[in-house]
Amino acid sequence: MKALVFDGNLSLKDLPVPEPSPNEALVKVLTAGICKTDVEISRGYMDFQGVLGHEFVGTVEQSPDPEQLGERVVGEINAGCGTCSWCKAGMERHCPNRTCLGILGRNGAMAEYLTLPPSNLISVPENLATERAVFAEPLAAALEILEQVHVKPADEVLVIGDGKLGLLVCMVLRLTGCKLLLVGKHPEKLKYFQDLGGSTALLHELADTRDKFDVVVEASGSPGGWKLALDRVKPRGTLVLKSTYHGSLEFNTAPLVIDEITVVGSRCGQLAPALRVMSQGLVDPTPLISGTFLLTEAETAFVKSQEPSSMKVLLKIGS
Amino acid sequence: MKALVFDGNLSLKDLPVPEPSPNEALVKVLTAGICKTDVEISRGYMDFQGVLGHEFVGTVEQSPDPEQLGERVVGEINAGCGTCSWCKAGMERHCPNRTCLGILGRNGAMAEYLTLPPSNLISVPENLATERAVFAEPLAAALEILEQVHVKPADEVLVIGDGKLGLLVCMVLRLTGCKLLLVGKHPEKLKYFQDLGGSTALLHELADTRDKFDVVVEASGSPGGWKLALDRVKPRGTLVLKSTYHGSLEFNTAPLVIDEITVVGSRCGQLAPALRVMSQGLVDPTPLISGTFLLTEAETAFVKSQEPSSMKVLLKIGS
Ligand SMILES: [Zn+2]
Ligand SMILES: [Zn+2]
Ligand SMILES: [Zn+2]
Ligand SMILES: [Zn+2]
Repeated sequence: MKALVFDGNLSLKDLPVPEPSPNEALVKVLTAGICKTDVEISRGYMDFQGVLGHEFVGTVEQSPDPEQLGERVVGEINAGCGTCSWCKAGMERHCPNRTCLGILGRNGAMAEYLTLPPSNLISVPENLATERAVFAEPLAAALEILEQVHVKPADEVLVIGDGKLGLLVCMVLRLTGCKLLLVGKHPEKLKYFQDLGGSTALLHELADTRDKFDVVVEASGSPGGWKLALDRVKPRGTLVLKSTYHGSLEFNTAPLVIDEITVVGSRCGQLAPALRVMSQGLVDPTPLISGTFLLTEAETAFVKSQEPSSMKVLLKIGS
Repeated sequence: MKALVFDGNLSLKDLPVPEPSPNEALVKVLTAGICKTDVEISRGYMDFQGVLGHEFVGTVEQSPDPEQLGERVVGEINAGCGTCSWCKAGMERHCPNRTCLGILGRNGAMAEYLTLPPSNLISVPENLATERAVFAEPLAAALEILEQVHVKPADEVLVIGDGKLGLLVCMVLRLTGCKLLLVGKHPEKLKYFQDLGGSTALLHELADTRDKFDVVVEASGSPGGWKLALDRVKPRGTLVLKSTYHGSLEFNTAPLVIDEITVVGSRCGQLAPALRVMSQGLVDPTPLISGTFLLTEAETAFVKSQEPSSMKVLLKIGS
């Protein structure tokens, strides 16, 4: 099968179709999404070598669970060892021996086939198109904020960063009825949220105000975003740190204590609610698609995904 | 002006247009909604005498705040005394000397004009039609649940009662991405939620399962609903009591303690988030409109609103 492999260089290779172990399912990949993490792997910023990709929709071809055969699925990307105390407590995502699809110890989704434990797979509702369902993983990461933080209908909320992540966060947080403002540097990206009736501001427009917010979500990935977040969260408010940074951040923790700020780190989320909000038409991430390429064009797709104006780039692999 | 008055009997009367005090606004009523509370007042179940009605959209004709003139508005129904300690803490809704539009010490909205303090009025976004905006007050009551309780995207939630209140609660809770089930007795009312892609069950269908839920909202107004709620909330779960009952409920509190259940009483909410979710197209309550009548037909409208199949009945008063 064809697969996009990083082994120090990024290239399309011919690999054997993976043999699922007796407790794994074999999934034929329909579509995969390119994520910032994939780009960072391809630049050698992370330790992973192998088939890239962790955002996918596929069809189950083999599974120990016969009910899954033929199902269109998305997949939880972390697979626990199944025997450690974290796994036994149902927290496979924190298992010290876990593998992670296309990120850690397990070949990923930018290939014609992948394997995952059947319990990682979740069926896509029939009315949900594949190019929409492929957003389940990044959308779940946005929804995770609402698992962690009680955002109330009357709250004033600031989202910092008009990239894919910031926009998906806005698409999710607007569902709470909160008074939401997205701040970013790119008018053409802020427009995605304006098209949903959302309020936006350019960085310098926000700088002209002294507005403070009950909840601030930092999704810009830049140290300036973190500083802005600290400056704009109300006393007793919550700062959600959704970005990861290269290197470490230096800052004075005293204001956090004096103002009783809660800082919440937020990572991946659960796929089922992400599928629900999309299949009920509450969130439609497809305006964020900047291009769809074949797997044979994967290298071009990676270049495209790194253009400043690009949002989500998809690979159409099987059918 | 014409007004629907309860003075022991319900009838249309001719009253003088109210004279707003210097710190009040005069509002020309466009549309009013008939609510269960109005029906209960009209049956003599409550102490109020005067003009009925607390759900309205109107146009500001006089106001100490010149920016409000000509604005289309909805109104917070509680008006505090402005001087007690509750009012000074911004909690006018709990002021012991408060008046409440069409419910307590203040003539209501089923008339050509009403008065309220300017700070109670909030402008309706231009894109929001009057017959939709008139749902702001009951929708705010549904959203109040999300002010009080952190409903998470992965939660399993049961709403009991397929009346107006239960359906508005479902329209709001589905925005959280939670796994939501509405249970009721009326297939034709459950259908309103099915039309939104929601899951529903008839009472006997739920009885065939042993399913338990993280959050249960009792919105049926019947003691059986309270019993069902207690039976179906998970240990450490939350039971939201949205209904009021005539008389008192008898029940054994031991299971509450043993299972560490939180019971939350929930009443009215804030209008701004209700307008936001409607103007952004996230909630559309208009399918619940069972009929629209002129103010001169108000008595017929009240009869209609009490038919078992009726949901929301509106009075079109001005234009
Ligand atoms: Zn990713
Ligand atoms: Zn483990
Ligand atoms: Zn009411
Ligand atoms: Zn007061």
